[in-house]
Amino acid sequence: MGVEMPLAEGRIDAARARSEQVLAEWLDRRDGVCAPLDDAIRYSVLGTGKRLRPVLVYLAGRALGAEERALDAPAAAIEMIHAYSLVHDDLPAMDDDDLRRGRPTVHRAFDEPLAILAGDALQTLAFEVLASRPHPRLGALIATLAQAAGRDGMAAGQAIDLGAVGASMDLAMLQAMHQHKTGALIRAAVRMGALVAVDETDPRVAALDRYAAAMGLAFQIHDDVLDVTGDTQTLGKISGADARREKPTYPALLGVEQAKDRARELLNEALESLEPLGEAGQPLAALARFMIDRDH
Amino acid sequence: MGVEMPLAEGRIDAARARSEQVLAEWLDRRDGVCAPLDDAIRYSVLGTGKRLRPVLVYLAGRALGAEERALDAPAAAIEMIHAYSLVHDDLPAMDDDDLRRGRPTVHRAFDEPLAILAGDALQTLAFEVLASRPHPRLGALIATLAQAAGRDGMAAGQAIDLGAVGASMDLAMLQAMHQHKTGALIRAAVRMGALVAVDETDPRVAALDRYAAAMGLAFQIHDDVLDVTGDTQTLGKISGADARREKPTYPALLGVEQAKDRARELLNEALESLEPLGEAGQPLAALARFMIDRDH
Repeated sequence: MGVEMPLAEGRIDAARARSEQVLAEWLDRRDGVCAPLDDAIRYSVLGTGKRLRPVLVYLAGRALGAEERALDAPAAAIEMIHAYSLVHDDLPAMDDDDLRRGRPTVHRAFDEPLAILAGDALQTLAFEVLASRPHPRLGALIATLAQAAGRDGMAAGQAIDLGAVGASMDLAMLQAMHQHKTGALIRAAVRMGALVAVDETDPRVAALDRYAAAMGLAFQIHDDVLDVTGDTQTLGKISGADARREKPTYPALLGVEQAKDRARELLNEALESLEPLGEAGQPLAALARFMIDRDH
Repeated sequence: MGVEMPLAEGRIDAARARSEQVLAEWLDRRDGVCAPLDDAIRYSVLGTGKRLRPVLVYLAGRALGAEERALDAPAAAIEMIHAYSLVHDDLPAMDDDDLRRGRPTVHRAFDEPLAILAGDALQTLAFEVLASRPHPRLGALIATLAQAAGRDGMAAGQAIDLGAVGASMDLAMLQAMHQHKTGALIRAAVRMGALVAVDETDPRVAALDRYAAAMGLAFQIHDDVLDVTGDTQTLGKISGADARREKPTYPALLGVEQAKDRARELLNEALESLEPLGEAGQPLAALARFMIDRDH
């Protein structure tokens, strides 16, 4: 392992840089119909964010032999879906957040109508971007993204989450909520990368899906733990916000130490799932480790 | 003309009935992840609406020889985009409407978070539906829908409209606003129907686009006129609402009679554009006449 780590980390950094560049190419333009809307869209996406989902698209696709430029559209599309969901989640009628990634949220930096419309237009743009390049499995790529984002995926998870504020939730319900709210899109990122390279019948697609499911949940538990243990400056959002809102979290249900243990178990599950990929899976392994070690 | 009219009207009714059925097939289900979200989505789409856009998909597609069942997905998809836009336009932060098509708006019948999420999930579902059936021009169909709905189409039109409340707007600005807010999606409906049947290089695609552009604007002017001349019960929404909000309208800029004349001119333009289609264009001609004669 030791010698591959710098190489794997280089791959992650390169994928992140490439996704920044592709996103900027789609968003930095001066000939749009409505400049304030374009500004709000740009603000929603550029300059912040870990780019976890596009990095997963690149790493999963490259692991199965996809060309990098064939991964640009799916990578940008899924980050746009993620960014739109954050803009709408932060709205006064939803989580009512003033700060996101260390900056004012979109409805605070602009206004509420523009935040709603920027989110809407970003979702539309995701599908436009995805369809901008011919691909023999374009239908499957769109279905994967839409099913993960929609009424049985991310949107359902957010609806469950909003319905649960102040209510009691057991561990199974909490896990189901996260599997929809954040897990579905993380799995879609990995699956889209894989589908650019191979058909869904390739057994490595299923192995990658097990990786993504375990990694996504570990990531969420770690996020909950950070909300309790981190401070506002490091996180770029108000720490302890979940507890004050009486939102159910893993540390609240399991205790901090047990939640950390569960995240590590899931990390190991994710790493084991990568075994069928051999060396090609190393960057994805490094990413999973990085996600669970981060402090913000 | 005389003998074709009942046939043409029958085609319109049949297309409307078929689109109702296809929408219900996608939306009526009991196995979703989040029942309140599914309920809000169903409420947003089913049981109301003229189905103008899906009818245009069917009529344009059939006029160029497309099979009816190949038109089902584009027809349902564009109506879902239209329905999502109405749900979000009605939100308190946007137009703040309590009544739509004679019923409480979605955020009144449910709540604001569910209205935001139902709109979001409906947009997602539109692209899922569109991609659910293989088609050699799937990329072009998705691009057509996305470009019409997004940052240079409907979303931009709504942003321009919101920015214009209380501000002065001349006729050219008003027309540009409507071309984005409602015109873009009407043109996309006709274009999607056409693209199911033929390649974009077929000259009838351009003829149909001229029809759609003129018809869409005539429809909008007629809508503005109805807002002044109609009563609340017939319209199913609060009449005179535009004037009270100081929204710019055609009657306000041109006067009611001149606005009506302009709608008739555009109707004639739409009808003339259909000439290259011969008999096959009759249902589209009947639809344009119907849209400008309606009183609600």
